[in-house]
Amino acid sequence: MSLSPSSEKPVKKVVLAYSGGLDTSIILKWLQTTYGCEVITFTADLGQGEELEPARQKALLLGIKPENIFIEDLREEFVRDYVFPMFRANAQYEGLYLLGTSIARPLIAKKQIEIAEKLGADAVAHGATGKGNDQVRFELGYYALKPDVTVIAPWREWDLTSRTALLEFAEKHQIPIAKDKRGEAPFSVDANLLHASSEGKVLEDPALEVPDYVYSRTIDPEKAPDTPTIITIGFEKGDAVSIDGEALSPASLLTKLNALGRANGIGRLDLVENRFVGMKSRGMYETPGGTILYFGHRAIESITLDRGAAHLKDELMPKYAELIYNGFWFSPEREMLQALIDKSQEFVTGTVRLKLYKGGVHIIGRESPYSLYDQDLVTFEEGAVAYDHRDAAGFIKLNALRLRTLGQRKKKLGL
Amino acid sequence: MSLSPSSEKPVKKVVLAYSGGLDTSIILKWLQTTYGCEVITFTADLGQGEELEPARQKALLLGIKPENIFIEDLREEFVRDYVFPMFRANAQYEGLYLLGTSIARPLIAKKQIEIAEKLGADAVAHGATGKGNDQVRFELGYYALKPDVTVIAPWREWDLTSRTALLEFAEKHQIPIAKDKRGEAPFSVDANLLHASSEGKVLEDPALEVPDYVYSRTIDPEKAPDTPTIITIGFEKGDAVSIDGEALSPASLLTKLNALGRANGIGRLDLVENRFVGMKSRGMYETPGGTILYFGHRAIESITLDRGAAHLKDELMPKYAELIYNGFWFSPEREMLQALIDKSQEFVTGTVRLKLYKGGVHIIGRESPYSLYDQDLVTFEEGAVAYDHRDAAGFIKLNALRLRTLGQRKKKLGL
Amino acid sequence: MSLSPSSEKPVKKVVLAYSGGLDTSIILKWLQTTYGCEVITFTADLGQGEELEPARQKALLLGIKPENIFIEDLREEFVRDYVFPMFRANAQYEGLYLLGTSIARPLIAKKQIEIAEKLGADAVAHGATGKGNDQVRFELGYYALKPDVTVIAPWREWDLTSRTALLEFAEKHQIPIAKDKRGEAPFSVDANLLHASSEGKVLEDPALEVPDYVYSRTIDPEKAPDTPTIITIGFEKGDAVSIDGEALSPASLLTKLNALGRANGIGRLDLVENRFVGMKSRGMYETPGGTILYFGHRAIESITLDRGAAHLKDELMPKYAELIYNGFWFSPEREMLQALIDKSQEFVTGTVRLKLYKGGVHIIGRESPYSLYDQDLVTFEEGAVAYDHRDAAGFIKLNALRLRTLGQRKKKLGL
Amino acid sequence: MSLSPSSEKPVKKVVLAYSGGLDTSIILKWLQTTYGCEVITFTADLGQGEELEPARQKALLLGIKPENIFIEDLREEFVRDYVFPMFRANAQYEGLYLLGTSIARPLIAKKQIEIAEKLGADAVAHGATGKGNDQVRFELGYYALKPDVTVIAPWREWDLTSRTALLEFAEKHQIPIAKDKRGEAPFSVDANLLHASSEGKVLEDPALEVPDYVYSRTIDPEKAPDTPTIITIGFEKGDAVSIDGEALSPASLLTKLNALGRANGIGRLDLVENRFVGMKSRGMYETPGGTILYFGHRAIESITLDRGAAHLKDELMPKYAELIYNGFWFSPEREMLQALIDKSQEFVTGTVRLKLYKGGVHIIGRESPYSLYDQDLVTFEEGAVAYDHRDAAGFIKLNALRLRTLGQRKKKLGL
Repeated sequence: MSLSPSSEKPVKKVVLAYSGGLDTSIILKWLQTTYGCEVITFTADLGQGEELEPARQKALLLGIKPENIFIEDLREEFVRDYVFPMFRANAQYEGLYLLGTSIARPLIAKKQIEIAEKLGADAVAHGATGKGNDQVRFELGYYALKPDVTVIAPWREWDLTSRTALLEFAEKHQIPIAKDKRGEAPFSVDANLLHASSEGKVLEDPALEVPDYVYSRTIDPEKAPDTPTIITIGFEKGDAVSIDGEALSPASLLTKLNALGRANGIGRLDLVENRFVGMKSRGMYETPGGTILYFGHRAIESITLDRGAAHLKDELMPKYAELIYNGFWFSPEREMLQALIDKSQEFVTGTVRLKLYKGGVHIIGRESPYSLYDQDLVTFEEGAVAYDHRDAAGFIKLNALRLRTLGQRKKKLGL
Repeated sequence: MSLSPSSEKPVKKVVLAYSGGLDTSIILKWLQTTYGCEVITFTADLGQGEELEPARQKALLLGIKPENIFIEDLREEFVRDYVFPMFRANAQYEGLYLLGTSIARPLIAKKQIEIAEKLGADAVAHGATGKGNDQVRFELGYYALKPDVTVIAPWREWDLTSRTALLEFAEKHQIPIAKDKRGEAPFSVDANLLHASSEGKVLEDPALEVPDYVYSRTIDPEKAPDTPTIITIGFEKGDAVSIDGEALSPASLLTKLNALGRANGIGRLDLVENRFVGMKSRGMYETPGGTILYFGHRAIESITLDRGAAHLKDELMPKYAELIYNGFWFSPEREMLQALIDKSQEFVTGTVRLKLYKGGVHIIGRESPYSLYDQDLVTFEEGAVAYDHRDAAGFIKLNALRLRTLGQRKKKLGL
Repeated sequence: MSLSPSSEKPVKKVVLAYSGGLDTSIILKWLQTTYGCEVITFTADLGQGEELEPARQKALLLGIKPENIFIEDLREEFVRDYVFPMFRANAQYEGLYLLGTSIARPLIAKKQIEIAEKLGADAVAHGATGKGNDQVRFELGYYALKPDVTVIAPWREWDLTSRTALLEFAEKHQIPIAKDKRGEAPFSVDANLLHASSEGKVLEDPALEVPDYVYSRTIDPEKAPDTPTIITIGFEKGDAVSIDGEALSPASLLTKLNALGRANGIGRLDLVENRFVGMKSRGMYETPGGTILYFGHRAIESITLDRGAAHLKDELMPKYAELIYNGFWFSPEREMLQALIDKSQEFVTGTVRLKLYKGGVHIIGRESPYSLYDQDLVTFEEGAVAYDHRDAAGFIKLNALRLRTLGQRKKKLGL
Repeated sequence: MSLSPSSEKPVKKVVLAYSGGLDTSIILKWLQTTYGCEVITFTADLGQGEELEPARQKALLLGIKPENIFIEDLREEFVRDYVFPMFRANAQYEGLYLLGTSIARPLIAKKQIEIAEKLGADAVAHGATGKGNDQVRFELGYYALKPDVTVIAPWREWDLTSRTALLEFAEKHQIPIAKDKRGEAPFSVDANLLHASSEGKVLEDPALEVPDYVYSRTIDPEKAPDTPTIITIGFEKGDAVSIDGEALSPASLLTKLNALGRANGIGRLDLVENRFVGMKSRGMYETPGGTILYFGHRAIESITLDRGAAHLKDELMPKYAELIYNGFWFSPEREMLQALIDKSQEFVTGTVRLKLYKGGVHIIGRESPYSLYDQDLVTFEEGAVAYDHRDAAGFIKLNALRLRTLGQRKKKLGL
C-alpha cells in the first residue's frame, strides 16, 4: 500500500504534465498500471527549446487516446502574465537568482487544472522529485485552484528508486529508451524561455567550478565578442515592449534578448541556495535575456519612480521573491503584493540604453517622457528655484532633534 | 545677518574638516573673517589617494597654529569599523549602490567631535554643499555625538555663490590657487579607500553615457586583460581576512582588492539615485574592491548562513542601507540592526574563489569548516537518511491547507 | 523681512483653513494686513461638533466677500474616503493611537487646494503651530496637490509670540474676543467625527494622570452603566455598513458608534508619542466609535481573511500608520499600500457582536457567509477529512530540517 | 507498521513530557507496550497551578523507576528567560494574542532534551495532538537541540482515536481514571504562569459567546470591584522588577500581577486565530498579569525609547510573534531579532502607574531617570531653545520636494 494520501481513494482520470521524455513516459505507464486510470497528457511549450510533436507521437504510442493529448504553446502567456509581472518587482531570490524555474510552475499547474475541470479528471500528476522545490510549486498550484483534486507525485510513491529499476520498468512496458538516456545524466536540467538551470552530480561540490559543458544558453564570456553590443529597450508601464525601436510581443522580445544575452555571455549564475524543503542546494542558472531585462527595468525605474515607491518596492521584494520561490503564486499575499507593485508602474515608461559586454550588462542611458529627473520638473515656475539650500538647515535640524536628545541623555549619564 | 541657526550665538573655536584643497581653504579663511573665531583643521587619510603633508603646509600658511592642525591616518579604522560592518549586511542602496561616500562621513564627524571635545571647541564646519546628502550625514553625526555643538555649513550661509566670487575671495585673502582650479571642474569628485564617485556637469544628462575620462579607479573593461584573474578570499565571522592565503589587515586587504578590481575593470556604476534631500541625481561610482568583496561575502554566506538568518537579513537590508545613505549611522535603529546582523555572522567563515574578468566578478567556489551544505551534516547518523521524501507530501499538504480553504470558498461562490 | 520661503514672492489670493475661532480670525486679519492679499475662507464640518454659520458671520464681519466664504459639510466624505480606508488597515500609530487628528488633515488640504484652483488663488494658509505634526500634514498635502502653491504658516512667521500680543492684535483689528478666550486655555483641543484630542499645559507632565475635565467625548468608565451594551456591526468589503441590522451611511454609522462609545466610556487613551518633527509629546485621545470599529474590523477579518493576507497586513501596518501620522496620505507609497490592503478586503463581509462595558470592547461573536472558519469548508468532500494528522509529521520534519542541520553543526563544534 | 518516522528504528529510552493526568498516563503505558522501551518522565511546574507530587506517585504506580522520574520547578526560569524577553518585544500574535501557550513549549522541549542527553535517551515524546500548533513547537525544539533524536507523537501514531478506545486502554492497563474524566471534557485547557487557554467543543462556534464557566483565571469584569485598583510597576532594562515599590523575582512578580488581574477581570480574549498547521481555530485566552505587563511595558518605552528604535521594533514585532507562535524559538532568526530587541532596552527603566478597572488596564502615569521626554533634555543650554520653529519650514519643504515633483508630473500630463 502506498504511503501517499493520493492513494486513499480510487483515481479515475489523471492529467499528467508530460514532456515526452523518458521519465514522464515511465510515469505515464506507471499511472496506468498502478492506478488503472485514464491518463490525459499535457505538454506545454514554455520556450524550453524542444519540439512538441514527438511528445504527441510518444503519447499515442503509449496508448493515450488522441482526445486525451493536449499540447499548447504557452510562450506568450508565460512571459506576459508571469515573467513580466515578476520583473516589475525586480525579484531576486537570495539576492541573485531571477527565479526562472519557479515562475513557470504555476502556469503549468493552472493549465493542468483547467484540463482536469474540462474533462472531469479527479487527479493530476507531475514528474518532480521528492527532494526539490518543484513538487511544492506544482502542488500548491493544484490545491489552490482545485481544492478537492487528488495529487499523484510518482517520485514520492513508487519503488523505482534506482536508474536500473527505472530502465527495467521502461523495458518491461516497451517504452522506447534513447541511447544517450541509458547512462545516468551528469546533471539534471530545467529550461524555459526565461532560463535554463542545472543541478546535481557534477555540480554537487560547491567548491568546484561549474564545468563549461554544463552551460547551454550562453557562450563563455571569454569567447564573447571583443566589441560591446549596445541596445535600447523600450518600456511601457513597467513592461518591456521594444528593442532598438522595434515593437515586439512579450515572448518575441524575451527571445530576442536571449539571443543577445547568449552571444555576449550574459546571465550565468553559480549559486548555493536554500530550498523551501529545508536543505541547501547548488545550482547553475542561465538567464541571458532576463538578466538584461532586470537591469533595464531598474534603469527605467530609476528616473520614473518616486523614492517612496522605489524604497517600498525594494523592502518588499525579498518577501515577494520568496513567495514565488516557495510556490505561493496563487496566494492572497502574492496577489496583494502584486497589486502594490502594479500600482507603482503606471509611469514606468521610456527607453534605456545598455551595453552588453563579455558577461556584463552596463546601463549607459535612460530617458522618459515621465522622468522625475527632468530639470523642468525641478523648476516649478519661471525664474523660481524649487530648492532653497537654506531649507536644508531646518531639514537637518529636525531630523537631528531626536539624536540630540539621545546624545544629551548619554552626556547626562556620563556615557 | 546670516540665516543659519549657527550664527545665533558667537563661535569661539571651530573644528573644520579640511582637505587642503581650494574650497576648504576658502572656507577656512571665511570662518576666520566671518566668525572671527579660532580655526582647528582636521585632515584625514581615508584612502582618498592624496598626500596629507601639503594640507599641513597650507593650513600653516593660512595662519593656523601648529597645535591646531590635526592630521590622521584613519584607513584601518575606516575599513574595520565602518566598511566591514556594513558589508556584513550586503548593503546596497536602491539595489545597486555600495554606499562608498555615505559610510565615510560618520567617521569624519566622529573625529571632528573628538577634537572639539578635547580642545573645547564649540563649533564644527564642513565643506559639503546645501543640495546634497553629505551635509546631512556630517551634521547628523555632529548632533548625535555632541548635541550642543554649533554647526557651520558655509555653502548654505555665504554669498560666494559663483565660481568668480569664490576666486575673488581667494585672491583677496591670498589663498594660493592651482592653475587647473581656475576653471570650473567638469564634475565633482569624492574618494576614499572604498570608492570614488563623480557627479554634476558632464554627468547631468542621464541619457548620455559617462565619458571614459571621468573614471579614475578602474580601467575600461574593454581594455582589461583577456585572461581572467582568479583569487581566493578568506573570511572570518563575516569579515574578509586574507587574499590568496595571505592574511591582511582590513585596509591592506581592501587596497589589494582595489588593485585587482582596477586592473579588471570592476565596480563601475552609472546610477540615477534618490537623495535624502528630495531630488534625483545622477552619479558615477567606482567601487572596485568593494564590488569583489560584496560577491565574496554573499558567496561565503551562501554555505554558512541558515535560510532563516539569510532571508531576515535580506528583508532588512534595504532599510539598513537607507539609514546609512541618509546619514543615520549614529542612530539607535542602525545600531539595533547592526546587532541583529552581527549576531548572524558567527560562523560566516571560510574561503571563496572568484573569477575577475573584464568588469565581471564570478563566484566559482566556496568552502567552509562550518558549511551547512556539507553532506555529512545532512546525514545525521550512520546509515540513516535525514531526508525522507514522504515527508514532503505532508509538508505540502499542510502548506496547501489554507489555499485549499480559499479555493473552496471561491468554488462555493462560483468564482 | 520674513524668514519664510512663502514671503519671497507677492501673494495675491490665499485660501485659509478657517474655523471661525479667535486664532484663525487673527490669522485672517494678519494675512490681510501683512500680505495685503485677498483672503478666501474655507470652513469644513468634519464632525467637530460646532455650528458653522457663526464662522460665516464672523468672516463677513472681518471683511471677507460673500463669494469668498466656503463652508462645506465633509462628514460623509471624511468617513467614507479617509477613515474607512484607514481602518481597513487596522492602523495604530505606536501600537495604540487610532490617528484621529492625522487622518483629517489631508481632506482639509485637498479642499483648500480645490478652491484655490477654482478661484485662481496662489496661496494657502493654516493655523497649525510650528512645533506640531499638523503643519507637516497640511503642507505635504498642499504641495503634493499643487506643487507651485505658496504656503503661509503664520505661527512660524509672525511675531505674535505671546497671548498678550495676540489679544492686542485682535483688539487693534476689532476682532471680537469671547470672554472665556481672554485667559490662556489649560490645554489645546482638536476634534472631528473620529476623535477629540487634547495636549499641552495641564497634560505636560506624563507622570500625572489626565484630569477628568479634559475629556469631552466620553463619560468616565467608572460612571458608565453597570450593565453591558451588546451591539452587532455589519461589514461589507472591510467597511462597516450597519449597526444592529440598521443600514447606515458612513458618517451616520460613526456618529452612532460614537454615542455608544461615549455612553460606555470607551476609547480614552493617554499617550506619550513621538512626533514627526522630532520630539516626544503627551496627548489625550478620545476615539469612542473608532475604538469599537477597530475591534469589530479585527473580528470580522479573523474569520474571513486568510493567514497569509492577515499577516502581511499586520507586518505592513506600522509603516502605513506612520505614513498617515507623518502626513504622507498623498504619497505613492501610501497609495501602493492602500492598493495592497484594499485587495485583501473583498470578502471581509459579515457581522460581529461586541460587548461594550465600562471602557472595554469585548468581541463575543462573528459570522460571515464567506467565513474561512466554516466547518463545511474544512471538509472537502463527503465523508472525507481534509486534514490528515499524519501530514503533520512531514510538515514538522521539513520545517525542522534546517534547524537540525544547524544543531548538527553546533554538535560538531562542541558548542 | 506505523507511518511515523519515529518507528523506523528501535527506541531504547524515551523522555516523556508527563503531566500526571490521564492522557499522558495512557501515553506512558502505550510507549512501554508499543515500543518496549524504558520511559523517563519529566514533569515541570510552569505555574499551571497543579500539585506535582501526585505525578510522581502515578509514575511510580505505572512502573517508572524512581531515578527515571524528573520533576522540576521552572517558574523562575520560564518568566526570566522566556516570558520577559518576549514581552520586551511587545509581542502580540495577530494583533491580540499574548502567546501564553507558545512561549512555554520551547522550555519544556529544552528540559526534555537535557534529560535525554544526561541519561542517554534516544527519543522524546509529548502529548500534543496532531491538529494543533503544540506538536510543532515541541518538535522544532527537540530537533534544533538534538538533531538525531527520535520523536514520538502518540496522538499521530496510535489507533486510540476515540474516547472509548482511550478509556478501554486505560482500564486494560490499570491506569486510574478519575471519575470526572470518564466523560469527554467540554473543552481542552492549557495553563502556565502566563496564561490559561481553552479551545474545542463548546467553543467551536465562533458566533457564540464563550460561556462564563470556561474562564478560570479571571473573574467576570462585571463582577469585579466597583473601584479601580491603582498600581505602580518598576522596570529595569525592559523587564518588570517591582510592584508598588516592592522588588520581586520574575515569577513572584508575574504571580502578583496575575492576582491583580484576576481580581479586576483583566486579560480575557476570545479569538479566532490562524494556526501554523493551516486552519483557523477559536480559542479563549486569559492572560491577567501579562495583559497588565504589556501595557506597562509600552508605557515605560513611550518615554525612554527613541522613535527610530520604537518604530523599528513595531515593524518587526509581527514577524517575531509569528516565529514564537510557529515554534521557532530556537532558530537563528528569532535569536537575531532578540539581539535587536535587547539592544534597544538598555534605558527602558522607570516606573509606570496603571489603573485596573473592570477588565481594563489604563496607563495613567510614567516616569524615568532616562526619560527622553524630560524638558531639561529638550533644552540644550541655558536660555536657549533647542527647537526653532523656523526649522520646520525647511523640514517640510524638503520632505515635500519629491511630492511636488510628482505633482508637477501629473499637472504636465493633465491628470
